[in-house]
Amino acid sequence: MAVQAAAGTPADTVGVSLGPAAALSCRECGERTPLGPVFACEACFGPLEIAYDFPGGDTEGLRKRIEAGPDNIWRYAPLLPVPEDVAAKPNTNPGFTKLVRADRLARELGVTGSLHIKDDSGNPTHSFKDRVVAIAVEAARAFGFTTLSCSSTGNLAGAVGAAAARAGLRSCVFIPHDLEQGKVVMAAVYGGELVGIEGNYDDVNRFCSELIGDPAGEGWGFVNVNLRPYYAEGSKTLAYEICEQLGWRLPDQLVVPIASGSQLTKIDKGLKELIALGLVEDRPYRIFGAQAEGCSPVSRAFKDGHDVVRPVRPDTIAKSLAIGNPADGPYVLDIARRTGGAVEDVDDPRIVDAIKLLARTEGIFAETAGGVTVGVTKKLIEEGRLDPALTTVVLNTGDGLKTLDAVAPTTGPTAVIRPNLDSFREAGLAS
Amino acid sequence: MAVQAAAGTPADTVGVSLGPAAALSCRECGERTPLGPVFACEACFGPLEIAYDFPGGDTEGLRKRIEAGPDNIWRYAPLLPVPEDVAAKPNTNPGFTKLVRADRLARELGVTGSLHIKDDSGNPTHSFKDRVVAIAVEAARAFGFTTLSCSSTGNLAGAVGAAAARAGLRSCVFIPHDLEQGKVVMAAVYGGELVGIEGNYDDVNRFCSELIGDPAGEGWGFVNVNLRPYYAEGSKTLAYEICEQLGWRLPDQLVVPIASGSQLTKIDKGLKELIALGLVEDRPYRIFGAQAEGCSPVSRAFKDGHDVVRPVRPDTIAKSLAIGNPADGPYVLDIARRTGGAVEDVDDPRIVDAIKLLARTEGIFAETAGGVTVGVTKKLIEEGRLDPALTTVVLNTGDGLKTLDAVAPTTGPTAVIRPNLDSFREAGLAS
Repeated sequence: MAVQAAAGTPADTVGVSLGPAAALSCRECGERTPLGPVFACEACFGPLEIAYDFPGGDTEGLRKRIEAGPDNIWRYAPLLPVPEDVAAKPNTNPGFTKLVRADRLARELGVTGSLHIKDDSGNPTHSFKDRVVAIAVEAARAFGFTTLSCSSTGNLAGAVGAAAARAGLRSCVFIPHDLEQGKVVMAAVYGGELVGIEGNYDDVNRFCSELIGDPAGEGWGFVNVNLRPYYAEGSKTLAYEICEQLGWRLPDQLVVPIASGSQLTKIDKGLKELIALGLVEDRPYRIFGAQAEGCSPVSRAFKDGHDVVRPVRPDTIAKSLAIGNPADGPYVLDIARRTGGAVEDVDDPRIVDAIKLLARTEGIFAETAGGVTVGVTKKLIEEGRLDPALTTVVLNTGDGLKTLDAVAPTTGPTAVIRPNLDSFREAGLAS
Repeated sequence: MAVQAAAGTPADTVGVSLGPAAALSCRECGERTPLGPVFACEACFGPLEIAYDFPGGDTEGLRKRIEAGPDNIWRYAPLLPVPEDVAAKPNTNPGFTKLVRADRLARELGVTGSLHIKDDSGNPTHSFKDRVVAIAVEAARAFGFTTLSCSSTGNLAGAVGAAAARAGLRSCVFIPHDLEQGKVVMAAVYGGELVGIEGNYDDVNRFCSELIGDPAGEGWGFVNVNLRPYYAEGSKTLAYEICEQLGWRLPDQLVVPIASGSQLTKIDKGLKELIALGLVEDRPYRIFGAQAEGCSPVSRAFKDGHDVVRPVRPDTIAKSLAIGNPADGPYVLDIARRTGGAVEDVDDPRIVDAIKLLARTEGIFAETAGGVTVGVTKKLIEEGRLDPALTTVVLNTGDGLKTLDAVAPTTGPTAVIRPNLDSFREAGLAS
């Protein structure tokens, strides 16, 4: 089947070479389409994802090649939709972030097995978005796009701005015009176009969809729209890294945040690929999804035993997870049920408590999304639904510096004293 | 000579084993003192630093051991004042941050050789302070201290809070009581004691000096006072990493920010050690120091040909470099002159321009200190004092997220439009 190029699509995109990526495949009907900047199946309008032709056979050789690779996601280039020489091109080179053994947190939570935080605040712009955008940049180059774009109110804007700057691409990021100044600065500092839209975030998204179908948007790669099948694959690298950092072993349990749900589904895809390639032993693993109570449509559907997700209007401090109509919600439900996991949520005060718990025990200052995963982990352990005797990995996908407001009202000095020893002793601070 | 234990010093500190660290040595008179929590020479009151007994001979073995080590500063444990098993202890494990090849920045600056940014925003709390604090934590453990402390208005507070939390030590950080809320949150979130002092930063420091000499501070390790000789050695790892990441080669030129000047002197010490150990070829290198014009006492002394540094009252947006009376200023002057480098400064508007230049060309959002080094690099090239044909490494020691205020007034949307294509076209944004 030929790609039907949408308006705004460069003509010569069929036949690009992106490593082991063989085609786009519909997640609903399985129909295949050649690689191109398309995201919906022509046959059934289902979402497209990358299908691969992985090199079979030499598992040991593949493992060695990965281990000898660079300390970033490009060590997994043989498993990603990127050209073989990707590591030689200017890119932000995210990934291979720390997997922190969290013994002090484990003690507080009553975990007797091993507990680990996969800390993506160590990425170049301090969120996991650098992973997905890095892959989108390679797709943009392959398809001849010269402008990298997205709509965003947070982490994605910075990741796109930084990646485009480093790659020498133009960028144009769309935001609601009344965003807080701090977020505007983070989005604007990389020097690309930053366009405020007079309207709310829905208006921004609607406008972007219009732009993709119009000649005005010719040559534009919207990382999470027409480049979405490539972009989304970046999340697989979280699965690869976690297993490699555990000594090429699957974790027993993973706790993953849910926004659109894409990240969770791609982590599952990555784990299955490692099993199929023989890079890890085939053992059961459970994936748990974590949402904020104020935006918990997938958790609600899981609890109600539904297969469909009813959209909600988000109202939570966990802004980076506040997608009321998560596109991959049904796939998340499938995975949680298939693997024996669950989807759970926590309220805002518990998100704040969890941020502080992680900071106090492990010295990791997480974004609100990290408060959601740690908070849900605590809840699942307390309810006996997450086995404390097993190996558990909890994701922190962002940085607390970006959501200072969440903890500010309840975080301050423990004492204020005059600059002398008497005042110090009176405050009860002496050793 | 026996250590004269200050009040507040645990008794059994003589005879601790900190890897290759052999003694403390006075930088002025050379007098040696056994390892302990002391920082000034008994004979002449000069500053103490670590003297080492490095294993001689097997250069290739040492290089291989380093390369097989963890992806953090502990790969250099054989060259640091830390126990051999340091990597197995809970620590924030900073270091091995990216050395970014900055080709687009190079083109804008007219660099024809290779230009690299050593980007320490990738550390756990996003500044180079994680390096020095990590070493201080090991010294605190060795000396039996149970509280980690410092005075700070910024990066150091977060680094101490995080490192103490992870190590399971108590922390107590002292700040001026009227600090901005964002900085207070960053310092407080790790759950240690945070004490506001009714007074300015000088009052805070004076109080800390009092506390060190008093029984009330018994068992307290002030990272940059009584643990300073250990703490300061953390900056050597910047030199080690830069050389290893260049393929075990010395850079021709380095541009390093100056606050107290300690970092620059320890980078020089690290480079000399690598040469002495045979890990890099002995070739000339030049070290350039960078200050903000609003706090440029070392630059002033360099230009005036003085050996002493006259204190100034800081007035600059580069708060993390705003030390008006830099303790290591005279040593910095020595190094800049000995290596054929220089000390230069840039004004605040050029610091902002340099932050934006680096963000726009390389996708790296630097703290104001990074604006100082990039700005000074630009100035030195324009004045023909830094050779554009050589290999140059410029340090970015912090993260732009922590100094948003510096760029906020001049960083915003490029356009604000209504959510439709006509409005978009009118703004001249279409491709």
